[in-house]
Parts: sequence; structure tokens; C-alpha cells
Amino acid sequence: MKQSKLFGKTLREAPKDEVSANAILLSRAGFIHKLMAGVYSYLPLGFRVLDKIKNIVREEMNALGGQEILMPALTPKELWQETGRWEKLKEIMFQFAGAGDQAVGLAATHEEVLVNIVRRYLSSYRDLPLYLYQIQDKFRNEPRAKSGLLRGREFSMKDLYSFHENQADLDNFYQQAIGAYQKVFERCGLISIVTEASGGAFTTEYSHEFQVATPYGEDEIMVCSGCGFAQNREICAFNDGAKCPSCAKAKLAQTKSIEVGNIFKLGTIYSKPMQLTFTGADGKEKEVIMGCYGLGPSRVMGSVAEVHHDKDGLIWPKEITPFHAHLLLLDNKQAGAADKLYRELTFASAKGGSASGRGWEILFDERVESSGAKLKDADLIGISLQLIIGAKSAGAVEYRFRDKSENGKVNFSEVDQLLKKFYR
Amino acid sequence: MKQSKLFGKTLREAPKDEVSANAILLSRAGFIHKLMAGVYSYLPLGFRVLDKIKNIVREEMNALGGQEILMPALTPKELWQETGRWEKLKEIMFQFAGAGDQAVGLAATHEEVLVNIVRRYLSSYRDLPLYLYQIQDKFRNEPRAKSGLLRGREFSMKDLYSFHENQADLDNFYQQAIGAYQKVFERCGLISIVTEASGGAFTTEYSHEFQVATPYGEDEIMVCSGCGFAQNREICAFNDGAKCPSCAKAKLAQTKSIEVGNIFKLGTIYSKPMQLTFTGADGKEKEVIMGCYGLGPSRVMGSVAEVHHDKDGLIWPKEITPFHAHLLLLDNKQAGAADKLYRELTFASAKGGSASGRGWEILFDERVESSGAKLKDADLIGISLQLIIGAKSAGAVEYRFRDKSENGKVNFSEVDQLLKKFYR
Repeated sequence: MKQSKLFGKTLREAPKDEVSANAILLSRAGFIHKLMAGVYSYLPLGFRVLDKIKNIVREEMNALGGQEILMPALTPKELWQETGRWEKLKEIMFQFAGAGDQAVGLAATHEEVLVNIVRRYLSSYRDLPLYLYQIQDKFRNEPRAKSGLLRGREFSMKDLYSFHENQADLDNFYQQAIGAYQKVFERCGLISIVTEASGGAFTTEYSHEFQVATPYGEDEIMVCSGCGFAQNREICAFNDGAKCPSCAKAKLAQTKSIEVGNIFKLGTIYSKPMQLTFTGADGKEKEVIMGCYGLGPSRVMGSVAEVHHDKDGLIWPKEITPFHAHLLLLDNKQAGAADKLYRELTFASAKGGSASGRGWEILFDERVESSGAKLKDADLIGISLQLIIGAKSAGAVEYRFRDKSENGKVNFSEVDQLLKKFYR
Repeated sequence: MKQSKLFGKTLREAPKDEVSANAILLSRAGFIHKLMAGVYSYLPLGFRVLDKIKNIVREEMNALGGQEILMPALTPKELWQETGRWEKLKEIMFQFAGAGDQAVGLAATHEEVLVNIVRRYLSSYRDLPLYLYQIQDKFRNEPRAKSGLLRGREFSMKDLYSFHENQADLDNFYQQAIGAYQKVFERCGLISIVTEASGGAFTTEYSHEFQVATPYGEDEIMVCSGCGFAQNREICAFNDGAKCPSCAKAKLAQTKSIEVGNIFKLGTIYSKPMQLTFTGADGKEKEVIMGCYGLGPSRVMGSVAEVHHDKDGLIWPKEITPFHAHLLLLDNKQAGAADKLYRELTFASAKGGSASGRGWEILFDERVESSGAKLKDADLIGISLQLIIGAKSAGAVEYRFRDKSENGKVNFSEVDQLLKKFYR
């Protein structure tokens, strides 16, 4: 894409009402636009990153055996009354009257909606296990929403629900889901800490959170550097510096963090009141055992912005970079050569093209701007790889990885190879 | 995908409260599940079709030069007050109080939200023209929602907005958009009639609708069989049988139809009150000229179900069929051979694989069911191509196109070729 055509210019000043690093950086770099507290639009750059995160999530959920569905946001009061959650969730659920004074609410979670569907189709143990997920926008009536994409009133969510014959089958799948989650976060450039936590408003059981350590997090967790022990501060019985109760070797340290995922063993909390049962191999009717697994793509995007940036701007991990490369034309005498390179890279080549088989995704800065402004914008936007054609490049292309891991020069004919080496 | 694992069984009985053909067929075939009037969930089969429609729309919008963004559903009252539409749309917009008694509404359309964004970034004629679109779920507080996916209270919408320097540029793009829309509908298997219509609640100008003729449509249009003349009955000054006012040769006929798209020349209706201006090449400040272009993917899905079915079930056009082929194992002695064929077709082959380069999408009915039940389910689900391995196939594969255009037999080794011939 030619940058002169790209909608969403970089801004010199951070919006005055934004206080979080992710909101300031993503707004300044032209990825998002704030409509009201906790409610954002995704501009073309932001849309591309969010879409890549969703696709990574989709791939890993499909690899788990998940089947993708799509449920609505608009839900009737009667459904939530089956579990008593119309009242219980009223502080965070938008509830209002629709046509004919029907009471409706915007779903903040989908256990009731999905159990209502599944009980229509599920009858036998042969129908189990079953894994269903969706990637959909959720709504929560947050009183405080000052953390950019980390705490939205409308936000993207992947919610997976699993249905099992017995606890052992749930336990087994739950471990697989932990592995899939860690893979998603790793592919998005985040190191996640599996943390024991309370079940919150959604269950009375304990749950696991996936936490990303950062000084700017809203959460506090207690972590042992020796073994895998980690607990949310809210449920941890030990203080900073205490001996780890798990390995008894290292000491616990208190760490600020961001929660990027949360998984629950629901058991029969929803299947019991909603009568989701199946006939077992022994002919007896039993309640279905459930688990649920939440992961917020927009929150992941915000977390990556919090964790991966420097004083100059964003630094996108390669699997979620908005474009594969940012091609900067700094010497107008080489406009023809740059344009030719741009067309070659974006056109699916006979040699096999990019990872997608459809040519590389290149943002081509051919604007009438100073070299300084272009370099500054490129650092702010944070595309993983910069390709620079300047007066000093002397017929070659300078490349710089945005994370400063490597830079150098290659011939025009070697750029495709450079991209292949990095992205494959 | 193995059908024994697919979530969403076919149902013998149509849901009692559904009256429209699309809702009855899509529910019986396991594509959708109704939560409340005008609010549906998409089960795995339905999700696949909806996703394919969205991707066709995306491809054609990108080909037009559109840049994809994503705007929120939750919007503040103040924004709508800039154009006076908080009051004007209150009958169809869900409006309610959020935290801190802030008045918010669920967007039924996005002109205000987008103009608010664009005025932040657009300053010069060099920024024009600009084409932005999103594919997002919209909400309308419909009092009557009895038409399945044709009239939802929550529904999928692609909305494109164009921004221009002058009327001539809008007029030119508007024609291109008409072409893109016709291509989308054609790829989805619908013949659309470009129809003059009133602007409705969204503009005071006239607009164009894309109508699909069907005896079950809610709309009425007057069409000339000789030339391209077509008007919505609401604005047509002529009666059934009148001489066509355009070509004066053929007679007008009244036709029932479904509206699948609607486009508007907005002019400065929104840019004027919201002060969306730009500095022209002559240095003068001017109001931006706008157009907007709506197309409902879920409504397209419902329309296809209305138009393409027979007494046995759905008949999906090939570009939006939930799977490329439905492989039916009717003879258990050939289970091994069928399973081998399934694995070969779904695995991206060294020969180049499917159109997606990732193997063919096959629904493999390996269930323990009678042949009659499997054939009946296959016709109800309506995948474009059926591949049958039965006792009578004698070492070959029977194939049947669901639209009854062709059937025959091929060797196991020729199935890949048959799929390539049909889908490429």
C-alpha cells in the first residue's frame, strides 16, 4: 500500500485524555481512534494488526479441535434468569428495553446463550466432547475505562467453551487449552505466566489467568522465579519475599502484570440450572461437564503495545506486524527503482511469493516529506522491518529491523530473500 | 471435517415460530439457531457460509480501493446530536443509559462515527478521494422481525463510505460501486436489479437499491423487461402494465423482491453539520462530498436460501458453499477407501492443492446412519457437490451437483480433477 493513500496520519501530540502507553502510542501512530471512554475504532493499520491476532487465535483454536460459530450480542432477560445472572451481572451488563418493552441485555459473556443452543442438539455421550468458540465483540459497562485497549466497554473476545462426559476429560482438555493459549501469546510476542486466580463473577471455582509482566499492568501477581508457581495477589496467602510454597527454594516476588486470558473449569455450574444433560454409555442421564476459555484479541493488541515499544514508538512482533516491510523512499532520484521494487515484492512472484502466497505486504512511503519525517513515522508505526532507499544506499537497500536486532545492506534482488528468511 | 463431529444436526421439523423459507431451511439444516425474534446464532455450517460471503465482499471492496477499518457499536448521544439523528432514529436505534448515566446508543449506521474520525485526519484535497469500509454487526430495534435473516435486530453489515472533492468524482465512483456490488451478488449466486428508491431515514435524496426478484420478497418493484429501468413501488408513478417511461417499448411489470444492498449519494448532508471540510487546490475551504454504500452479508445469506432451494433443501452456489464437497460413505465395506480419499482431498497436495492452496474443504459423512438418511441430510444441507461411495459405485465415486446440472461417475484418482474443474 502506498502511504500517501493510507488513512490515518501519525500525530505529533498524544491525545490529552489518554494516560495509558498503549492508547497514547496506538493513537499517535494512527492505529486507533477514541470515540468515548473504553470505545475505539480501528483505523487501517490497527485493523490489520487486530485481524492478524484474530487469525492466530483462530488457527490455534482450530488446532485444538474447536469449531467456530458466531453468537449474537443482543440477548433476552429470560435466558439469563435461568442461571440468576441477570441480577448478578447487572453492574457490568448493559440492560435496557427493546421494542414492545422486552428486556434485553448486551452479552458480556456467552455461557447461557451457548448452553441454550447446545441443549437443543446434544443428547448422547457420542456427541461429546465438543469444543465451540467464537470471535465476537463483547460489551461491559465499565465505570472506569482509562487503560486504552486493556479495559474496553466494547472489545474483541475469543470465547471457547468445552463440553465433556466427565471431569477427567475436562482436566485433560484444560491442559491442552493452556498449551494452545501459551502458543497464541508466544506467536503474538508475549511471554505469559499461567497464574492461579479467583473465579470472579463467573464461577465460584478457582480459575487460571494468563498474565504478562509489565511495570504498567493493572494486576498484581506473586511469582516464584524458581518453579512455575504464580498466583494473583488477590488470592495469594504469602507476601513479597516469602519462601515459595511450591518449590521452597526461591522467594516469591510481586510483579505488575496485564491479564490477557482467563480460563475456568465450570463443571456443572451452567449445565445444572439449564438442564444440559446427555445419556451416558450406561444409559443414565447426566449433566454435562463444562469449561470456558476467554482471550481478548484487542487486549492482546494493547498489551503488545505496552510491552513492545521504545521512546521512538511501537515495535511489532513479526507475526502481527501490520505490514511485512516498510519501504522508505528517501531519495527522489531513485523513485523509479523503489517503485519497481515495491511492485515486485507485492506481486505474487513465480518463485512462490510470500508466506501467504499472495505477495509481500509492503507499506511504501512515497510521500512528499522530509527523510527525517519519514524515518520518524516509520519508527512510530513500528513495522518489523524497514527497507530504506536513500542517497547513501548507493544502488542497494538498507534494512533495519525495528527491534534493532540487525541492520545492513542488500542488493535490490536480495530483498525477497531477506523477507523469506525472516518470515518463514 | 467428519460429520460425526460437526456441531448442529439436521432437524426433521421446522421450528414452529418461523414462517420464512430462509429461516425454516437454515434452521432445519443446522446453519442457524434462533435466540429471539430477529436474533440468530450461526452454527459451524452457517458460520462458514457467512464468512465466505464476507470475504467476497472484502475482496470486491478492496478491488474498489476501499481500506478496511472497524468502528464500534456503542456510541455517545452527543455525536448523533450533531446531525439531529439521535431523535430522528430513536424508533430504530437501541438507546439507553450506561455507567454514570451517560446516554449511549447502538449504531444502526455509521455516518456520524466515521465523519467524526475523518475530520480528525483529513485536511487537504490531496487526501481525497478516500474510501473506507467495515464489516461489522449492526443493531436495529425492529418491532417486526419475522423474516429470518432478511430482517434482523442484530445483523452483519458491510458499510462503505466515500469522500470526494466534487460531485463529478462522487458520480464516477458511484458507478464503480454499482459494478462492484453487482459482482458481489453475482459471485454469491444472486441476480440483482439496480432499482431507484427513496432515501428513507438516512438522506433526503434518492438512492439505489439492489433487489433480487423472488415471489417471497417483502419489497415491490416495477421493472421494465426491455431496458434497465427499475423503480421501487414506493416511488414509481406508473402502474403494472404501463408503458416503460424509459424505453417506451416494453411494459412495466410488478415484481416481488428482496433488497440486498442500498447506496446513497449523500452530498454534504453529513459533512455540513459536522464541519468536515478540506482545503482545495485553489486554497479555499470546502465541504467534503460523500457517498455511502450498504450491503448485508447475513441478508445475502438469507436471500440465497430463499432463491436457491428445492423441496429437498438448500442449494448453495459454489463460491459460498459451506464445503467444496460432501463425501457420503454409504457402503461400510469401502470405509477404508473413503477415508483415504477424504485424507487425500483435504491434505494440500504436492500437485498444487485447492484454490486456497490448503486442500479441499470436505464434509465427510462417516456417521452410523442409513443411506437414505445420509442422502436426505446431504440434500437438505445443500453443499454444491456430492461425492457418493456406495455399494453400486463399484470401485468408483458417484458425483452429483446439488443443482442437478450434472451427475456421473469418476475413478477415485479423478476426484481432485473434478473439483479443480468446478472450482477454478
